[in-house]
Amino acid sequence: MSGSLDVIGLGPGAAHWLTPEAMAALERVSDVFGYGPYVERIAPRPGLTLHASDNRVELDRASAALALAASGRQVAIVSGGDPGVFAMAAAVMEALERGPAEWRALDIAVLPGVSAMQAAASRLGAPLGGDFCVMSLSDNLKPWALIERRLIAACDGDFALAIYNPASRARPQPIHDAFRVLRARRPPQTPVAFARAIGRTDEAVTLTTLAQADPAIADMSTLILVGASTTRLVARPGQRPFVLTPRSYEAPR
Amino acid sequence: MSGSLDVIGLGPGAAHWLTPEAMAALERVSDVFGYGPYVERIAPRPGLTLHASDNRVELDRASAALALAASGRQVAIVSGGDPGVFAMAAAVMEALERGPAEWRALDIAVLPGVSAMQAAASRLGAPLGGDFCVMSLSDNLKPWALIERRLIAACDGDFALAIYNPASRARPQPIHDAFRVLRARRPPQTPVAFARAIGRTDEAVTLTTLAQADPAIADMSTLILVGASTTRLVARPGQRPFVLTPRSYEAPR
Repeated sequence: MSGSLDVIGLGPGAAHWLTPEAMAALERVSDVFGYGPYVERIAPRPGLTLHASDNRVELDRASAALALAASGRQVAIVSGGDPGVFAMAAAVMEALERGPAEWRALDIAVLPGVSAMQAAASRLGAPLGGDFCVMSLSDNLKPWALIERRLIAACDGDFALAIYNPASRARPQPIHDAFRVLRARRPPQTPVAFARAIGRTDEAVTLTTLAQADPAIADMSTLILVGASTTRLVARPGQRPFVLTPRSYEAPR
Repeated sequence: MSGSLDVIGLGPGAAHWLTPEAMAALERVSDVFGYGPYVERIAPRPGLTLHASDNRVELDRASAALALAASGRQVAIVSGGDPGVFAMAAAVMEALERGPAEWRALDIAVLPGVSAMQAAASRLGAPLGGDFCVMSLSDNLKPWALIERRLIAACDGDFALAIYNPASRARPQPIHDAFRVLRARRPPQTPVAFARAIGRTDEAVTLTTLAQADPAIADMSTLILVGASTTRLVARPGQRPFVLTPRSYEAPR
């Protein structure tokens, strides 16, 4: 039997966002690779080997999974969210590009999932209801100058913004720099939401404004949503307001 | 029993992308509203009333669903893909904003789904592996000048691009204008993919370059992916190459 590699998105925290396609693949494979907390979400069963690895070793993990698939095993790599959005699909393609030619003949499939921005947006109403930009703030893999250029471009285009990887213990500064860029270009009352661990038991949403936001509350599990010029609140009695970025640009009221 | 409204994402075409959360909600509700082809995907059952409506009446559909929920029914509105991405979540919030105050006290939830860009990206490898912009090319709801400004900003920021609603019979021109904007700013060899009806039986992917792309092949069911400056192909024997936008900006080879 020839080997295969499924690059699987588990969705954000909750099991009820795991697609039937991903579930079926996880029942079929012999080996699952992934960052520890994601692999922990996979139910053990006879015949399934779990290979948990550390964060920030994505390329090594992808190469190990490809090598095992090349030996004839049915392998999965799991990501939280969608593997195509700041997750393992790109690492697998990079490993494929660098690896032995025979890896390219493997049966490789990417299985999409609900990404963190969608889970966060769903809690808030429709903050990404118009055009938007999706950015990672990690400067591990790209220079800060590029991140800044992209934040400025997002403001120039009046896009709403979904920001992944805003901060970690090793990278406390970029989120503060990013807010400095945004505050110089967007009105102070622009709605901003910090959505942390959506779908997990410790889920938390902080809805605030660009002026009042405290970037220091962002961590590795936080997804930040920043409104466009048209983004506004829809008040609700006794509940957090919804956030609406309308579909139309000159929104009738 | 007080009424509720679930704004549900069905995911792209295939049932294997429908989340368990969405499935459970569809089993619970009394009424389902939506554009005809999406409502057709819902299995009929006793006690469930289906309300199919035409495309481009999103606000009327949202208001009708909210009014029925206000009468005490358990109502769902379905979208293909993710309701938060160019779909019904924004229309519901807009209807809520304009409607009677009592609608705001309803139990309203948005249930995320896999969006078309993620299904398309999954077929192609990792075309959205770095920062990217998500745009609708429909000029029904926003002026062309804004669309052009955003395309230019996306190029200024060297974002990859996911383009929804590139063309329809009534709007054949904007996609040609958009390619003119992109071709003036991105290299001719930039990878471009037209992903049509992903997850449906008539699924089709055309992988080409910015120079060689024929925008006329795009229709209402097409999602277009446009690479950033770093986007490249990973060749495979006897198969379509993968498309890789690497996570790092100065990608080692």
